[in-house]
Amino acid sequence: MPKVLVLNGVNLGRLGAREPNVYGNLSHAELADQLVATGLTLGLNVQVRQTDDEAELVRWLHEAADGELPVVLNPAAWSHYSIAIRDAAAQRTADLVEVHLSNIHAREEFRHHSVISAVASGVIAGLGPLGYELALRFVAARRPG
Amino acid sequence: MPKVLVLNGVNLGRLGAREPNVYGNLSHAELADQLVATGLTLGLNVQVRQTDDEAELVRWLHEAADGELPVVLNPAAWSHYSIAIRDAAAQRTADLVEVHLSNIHAREEFRHHSVISAVASGVIAGLGPLGYELALRFVAARRPG
Amino acid sequence: MPKVLVLNGVNLGRLGAREPNVYGNLSHAELADQLVATGLTLGLNVQVRQTDDEAELVRWLHEAADGELPVVLNPAAWSHYSIAIRDAAAQRTADLVEVHLSNIHAREEFRHHSVISAVASGVIAGLGPLGYELALRFVAARRPG
Amino acid sequence: MPKVLVLNGVNLGRLGAREPNVYGNLSHAELADQLVATGLTLGLNVQVRQTDDEAELVRWLHEAADGELPVVLNPAAWSHYSIAIRDAAAQRTADLVEVHLSNIHAREEFRHHSVISAVASGVIAGLGPLGYELALRFVAARRPG
Amino acid sequence: MPKVLVLNGVNLGRLGAREPNVYGNLSHAELADQLVATGLTLGLNVQVRQTDDEAELVRWLHEAADGELPVVLNPAAWSHYSIAIRDAAAQRTADLVEVHLSNIHAREEFRHHSVISAVASGVIAGLGPLGYELALRFVAARRPG
Amino acid sequence: MPKVLVLNGVNLGRLGAREPNVYGNLSHAELADQLVATGLTLGLNVQVRQTDDEAELVRWLHEAADGELPVVLNPAAWSHYSIAIRDAAAQRTADLVEVHLSNIHAREEFRHHSVISAVASGVIAGLGPLGYELALRFVAARRPG
Amino acid sequence: MPKVLVLNGVNLGRLGAREPNVYGNLSHAELADQLVATGLTLGLNVQVRQTDDEAELVRWLHEAADGELPVVLNPAAWSHYSIAIRDAAAQRTADLVEVHLSNIHAREEFRHHSVISAVASGVIAGLGPLGYELALRFVAARRPG
Amino acid sequence: MPKVLVLNGVNLGRLGAREPNVYGNLSHAELADQLVATGLTLGLNVQVRQTDDEAELVRWLHEAADGELPVVLNPAAWSHYSIAIRDAAAQRTADLVEVHLSNIHAREEFRHHSVISAVASGVIAGLGPLGYELALRFVAARRPG
Amino acid sequence: MPKVLVLNGVNLGRLGAREPNVYGNLSHAELADQLVATGLTLGLNVQVRQTDDEAELVRWLHEAADGELPVVLNPAAWSHYSIAIRDAAAQRTADLVEVHLSNIHAREEFRHHSVISAVASGVIAGLGPLGYELALRFVAARRPG
Amino acid sequence: MPKVLVLNGVNLGRLGAREPNVYGNLSHAELADQLVATGLTLGLNVQVRQTDDEAELVRWLHEAADGELPVVLNPAAWSHYSIAIRDAAAQRTADLVEVHLSNIHAREEFRHHSVISAVASGVIAGLGPLGYELALRFVAARRPG
Amino acid sequence: MPKVLVLNGVNLGRLGAREPNVYGNLSHAELADQLVATGLTLGLNVQVRQTDDEAELVRWLHEAADGELPVVLNPAAWSHYSIAIRDAAAQRTADLVEVHLSNIHAREEFRHHSVISAVASGVIAGLGPLGYELALRFVAARRPG
Amino acid sequence: MPKVLVLNGVNLGRLGAREPNVYGNLSHAELADQLVATGLTLGLNVQVRQTDDEAELVRWLHEAADGELPVVLNPAAWSHYSIAIRDAAAQRTADLVEVHLSNIHAREEFRHHSVISAVASGVIAGLGPLGYELALRFVAARRPG
Repeated sequence: MPKVLVLNGVNLGRLGAREPNVYGNLSHAELADQLVATGLTLGLNVQVRQTDDEAELVRWLHEAADGELPVVLNPAAWSHYSIAIRDAAAQRTADLVEVHLSNIHAREEFRHHSVISAVASGVIAGLGPLGYELALRFVAARRPG
Repeated sequence: MPKVLVLNGVNLGRLGAREPNVYGNLSHAELADQLVATGLTLGLNVQVRQTDDEAELVRWLHEAADGELPVVLNPAAWSHYSIAIRDAAAQRTADLVEVHLSNIHAREEFRHHSVISAVASGVIAGLGPLGYELALRFVAARRPG
Repeated sequence: MPKVLVLNGVNLGRLGAREPNVYGNLSHAELADQLVATGLTLGLNVQVRQTDDEAELVRWLHEAADGELPVVLNPAAWSHYSIAIRDAAAQRTADLVEVHLSNIHAREEFRHHSVISAVASGVIAGLGPLGYELALRFVAARRPG
Repeated sequence: MPKVLVLNGVNLGRLGAREPNVYGNLSHAELADQLVATGLTLGLNVQVRQTDDEAELVRWLHEAADGELPVVLNPAAWSHYSIAIRDAAAQRTADLVEVHLSNIHAREEFRHHSVISAVASGVIAGLGPLGYELALRFVAARRPG
Repeated sequence: MPKVLVLNGVNLGRLGAREPNVYGNLSHAELADQLVATGLTLGLNVQVRQTDDEAELVRWLHEAADGELPVVLNPAAWSHYSIAIRDAAAQRTADLVEVHLSNIHAREEFRHHSVISAVASGVIAGLGPLGYELALRFVAARRPG
Repeated sequence: MPKVLVLNGVNLGRLGAREPNVYGNLSHAELADQLVATGLTLGLNVQVRQTDDEAELVRWLHEAADGELPVVLNPAAWSHYSIAIRDAAAQRTADLVEVHLSNIHAREEFRHHSVISAVASGVIAGLGPLGYELALRFVAARRPG
Repeated sequence: MPKVLVLNGVNLGRLGAREPNVYGNLSHAELADQLVATGLTLGLNVQVRQTDDEAELVRWLHEAADGELPVVLNPAAWSHYSIAIRDAAAQRTADLVEVHLSNIHAREEFRHHSVISAVASGVIAGLGPLGYELALRFVAARRPG
Repeated sequence: MPKVLVLNGVNLGRLGAREPNVYGNLSHAELADQLVATGLTLGLNVQVRQTDDEAELVRWLHEAADGELPVVLNPAAWSHYSIAIRDAAAQRTADLVEVHLSNIHAREEFRHHSVISAVASGVIAGLGPLGYELALRFVAARRPG
Repeated sequence: MPKVLVLNGVNLGRLGAREPNVYGNLSHAELADQLVATGLTLGLNVQVRQTDDEAELVRWLHEAADGELPVVLNPAAWSHYSIAIRDAAAQRTADLVEVHLSNIHAREEFRHHSVISAVASGVIAGLGPLGYELALRFVAARRPG
Repeated sequence: MPKVLVLNGVNLGRLGAREPNVYGNLSHAELADQLVATGLTLGLNVQVRQTDDEAELVRWLHEAADGELPVVLNPAAWSHYSIAIRDAAAQRTADLVEVHLSNIHAREEFRHHSVISAVASGVIAGLGPLGYELALRFVAARRPG
Repeated sequence: MPKVLVLNGVNLGRLGAREPNVYGNLSHAELADQLVATGLTLGLNVQVRQTDDEAELVRWLHEAADGELPVVLNPAAWSHYSIAIRDAAAQRTADLVEVHLSNIHAREEFRHHSVISAVASGVIAGLGPLGYELALRFVAARRPG
Repeated sequence: MPKVLVLNGVNLGRLGAREPNVYGNLSHAELADQLVATGLTLGLNVQVRQTDDEAELVRWLHEAADGELPVVLNPAAWSHYSIAIRDAAAQRTADLVEVHLSNIHAREEFRHHSVISAVASGVIAGLGPLGYELALRFVAARRPG
């Protein structure tokens, strides 16, 4: 089964606890379980990881580039300034979908722009945990035969 | 079967003919057929409409507000300046998902910002025709059981 | 009795239904009735029109220019970008008062500026339906004896 | 008879003498007389004051807040920078209508924005001395029966 | 004789009547007659159209793209904001010359930039009705022998 | 006992009455009493003054410069534009601590910048009335033994 | 002997004491004496005034307008924001020369622009106390024989 | 004794060695000792930590959120761009005071704005090591009796 | 035969050699020959000059002003910053048409604005060498009988 | 007699002929004669030069630096962009006074800023030919006895 | 032999693999070998390190400051936002040369500015791997004999 | 021996005399001698030229383009505005290295950006006269064996 990385950035380990009115009640572990399950139904081997360490996310993106793995990436707060992650993501050799749980365009001005979007295949924002699932569907649909 | 409107804005009737390297080869009629079919599998009565007339799109959004219909909206070029459409969309009484075929964040500077996003439930960009299907899945998932 | 046009722009046909906390509960038909009645007490033949079509509003402004008719104009969302309406309004041969129901200066940043104000006689904002009546009084006061 | 304050800011004591092509020929005393008379017909006890002293205007706005008095305020040049007056005006416990004799949107760029408008009930600009009278009518209409 | 479309945008039907000091005394009908006559001398079948409706202009540009027709386009006020027209014009399969009667660079700041120029073959501004004729000459010169 | 001036700017005489959700319930007189008492415990002769008059505040700052008196300054709304106060404060021959009751960085954009901070020893914002007390402690700690 | 007003704004009473490296060692009284003496040699009755009160400066400018008196004006810190003083100065019926002791263009960014210069006859900056004398010479040279 | 975290960001381990004219001569260890001692006198169990690793600071802020611990935070260079730290800090369930040793408003332009301030209780800048002590006093004063 | 100056600015002597994909293959000498020939057919004595020296171009514009000669001016790179040339061109006593070979609006951002356009009669851009010929036709058409 | 250079930049040789409503009727030769005469009365050997060539002005400024000569400099249009002249002027070893005939602050936006002012001793603008004379007086007054 | 640190930032471990059209084919290990060899010929003990971890780079810069070691620093993506690295680099007690493999001024707008350059001795950009060697030569030349 | 041009722009003839704290004590002649000598050791025929005349520098760049000569270019003040030089440099058929003696990124804001860098092979700044030598080494290394 083809492997897909779901990579969650800084503070997303706090899902469920942090600002549930913005990010929902699902914990990160529950989200991971859901996405693995969804992956199975789509024929994808989904690996979900989370880190608060920019260097670790960069390394995972290197791993994806080397393995030609599709990536579903929620860069969280890093979206708005980490050109380091942008450059790591730009190496992608397979699809990379940027996902945001909340509608970043309806929040503070500084969240309206992501420095990463320009090097992604596409972006899904504001659709909550379903956004990840839809991204996986996109990945599945793009896999050859 | 609950009704969903898929509303496509200006120049989108030209799909397939216009800048296929950006927008793909699918014609608008083919796209519509696909989305109706997808709707059926999701238990949704999908109506696909296209207009080059801002006033008509505004009226369709009024219709959606009155009927509490979910909307999948691709405002195309209007995304970047039509506050008229923003205000019509802001009345939404059900989900409204903004969809862009291309990754607007990887194109000209003036396409990076949509005046409509802030009043949408969420945004999907850059995933091609699949973006519409994913939006319909979001709508389906949000419908009460 | 001298004729005055009250021209309402995009989405204003939704008055009463749309965001009543911002725009109040009065429907457009009720507003029109009130303004016609007010006009009678002021000796003015008030015609109230509404359109969601930029081209139609432009044509009404041409009609006003040709007929040297005073205009009370609420351009609604078009205020903030429609230079087409500005240019049509700039032809005015009689007074043109721009009216906004809400205090646009206390709302989103992009509503603080109207591209039309510079070619109006003056502007009334934030005084609700009374704003129209006051604009009519201004028109009445400026009519020669 | 309910009391209303008409407060005129810096340089407005020069009315009639200063730039009559912009501000008209009426002196401040004549304007005050007209507004008191208009007040009487509207059942309002209108007090008209003018000052070139920011501190005095601030104190009058404190007085209005304490007395829950409606205010018609022409902040003149202070409109464009005096956050002190904005903060004093923001305490209003009754309606406050900002009035400008000239159409500030058709003048120099720096006059297009008023730091005070966002805390006013509404704004009337460009309608000359009639603007004050219309503001009083608004106040009168909003007074409970 | 090869066909060329001369497409005039919003308010240009008012030529001769509107701001003659800026736009001259020629009416739109007279302009059209002149251009048809000029076309004949150049071996071109010139069709002159005018509309105040953005949707109609968009459709004419679709027609030009389908027919591989050269276009002389005066987008008037739409020049400064209508990305819808830009996108329609960007499909051009033959030359498209943008024409402005007045020198937009010598007028208000907001008229200095046209969102359409970047997708035109070239731009002629400030040369009055002669600008159209020169644009036709350019079209004629570029037609294969 | 060394003298310290606590200087409160425009509208701060309204403390307790004005926007208590932002500024708290303490009146200015109560605040002054508290600060005098705190001063006594710190061995400081605290004088608390308030004015709505920019000129008076300027003169107090001149007095402080002449007397080499430390100052605790809340410039209130003037923070954001009064270069006059900045220049008067820049003469300081002893410490000058700028204090804001509310967290100005969490309020309107125009309150994020103070033209005075660059000439202060330091700034305390958002800590309520305690902010003044902490500023006095700073002053006390800096006095030579 | 024709009268000329030399009007010095906020903090200029501190000359000699305040930032002597920027403003020199001359006190305001000494400056005034020098200018009166210079005036006598030029046949001018020079009155030198200083105020820290914006309202007082505004009134002096009204006085100058009424008396058609030339003015040498150093608005000091007010230069950079006081539109109130600009509007008062704009009434001038005789020459008004804006003077700055220091070269404001070589200081902080916010001092590079004066909101008053556009309504002055001209500006002298950076020439120290001599700047006032040169301004008086300009006034003298412009007086009719 | 209630626990309080004092969290120092990047490069602050270099205190005493790095730019002593800006940051003073106290080493980080000495600062920590002082703050622990101050804490004892205030009845607070103060823990002082320093890290050059953004991820570690984020985790400490998570710990504070979970433990409902007050925080005194000096984000140092991260203040000006790390939205990751802002989001972690925004979870605070107790007071969080942002402290800067130097007066950031009197330094380079890019240091004038902190992306973190808007989610802090308040900010203290420019008061040197005393700033931390004052922040602790604020925390102590806010603890329930 | 009336004289017309065609003045080409910096680097235009390199035509044919420099970036032929942008500027075409015609050399400057060939262009000059063509324009002289075109001039003859139009009854104009065309003089074509080129310089890389700003001072020389300024002098030619002085010559044109003195001789009341029409000018066709391609300021090339100077378009974007040489206010010296603008001021020289502003003296024009006859028509001055600004010509650009390439469509400057479709190139780098800094080429979108010409500081000279505001003082020209009009502008032609993007029409290649034909642009010069069209400019000459405009000049010919404007010459009295 | 000490030597002073009066250096006039681009287009100033056109004085009297060019825009006399802005620059007056005096020719450059007449101005030079006046300034030489004024110099004699002040004990200064005044040399007046004019050039349209940036390189020549740069060389004259080098000459002034080498000779430690005071300079009165009107950089004309170069004021607004020629950093070359700024750098040459910055070498000054004696006073350098920047002079503008017109009040540049009351003209087009791009003339409000001079890149040279920051390296001048001071600036005189808007006082016509008298501005040069006043600059010479400043130079004379600064020469050691 | 004096020690020099060559410090390479985020994603530079990917050299050879990542965007070879931009960064070349040399791997990081090969680059390191070359630089060590070059160092030997220059009499320098070159240590080459690479990290994707901002904290590690900060610590290396602390080590360099303590050891008074010259540094050749390629901050890669961090150049454009990491003030943390800037502050660490600002401590330098020996030369620090910033190196970029590609010409950052010819790439995306956001790469044109480095927040680190202002605290470096100098910058070399766009010269590929040779840039490092040239930086080492600079370091060698600056070492005392 | 292959020829290389070292082209120095405006005011660089003043090296040694002008701001030695910024530019060092070496005269231009001494610099030229050094670079010629360095060239010999690198097998390059180095020609060093300096001009204060933009036109002359443009012509030298044309010469380099025609001769396919590598260029080491220090555009000095012109770096920041001369698009004329940029366009001339853009024709380069061999390497062109931009050199600045001082670290322009650590100086005034307006020196941070060079309009020429984007068309250079690369840039060296802040390394003093060594910068030229390093640029020559780059040129030597790029010459085919």
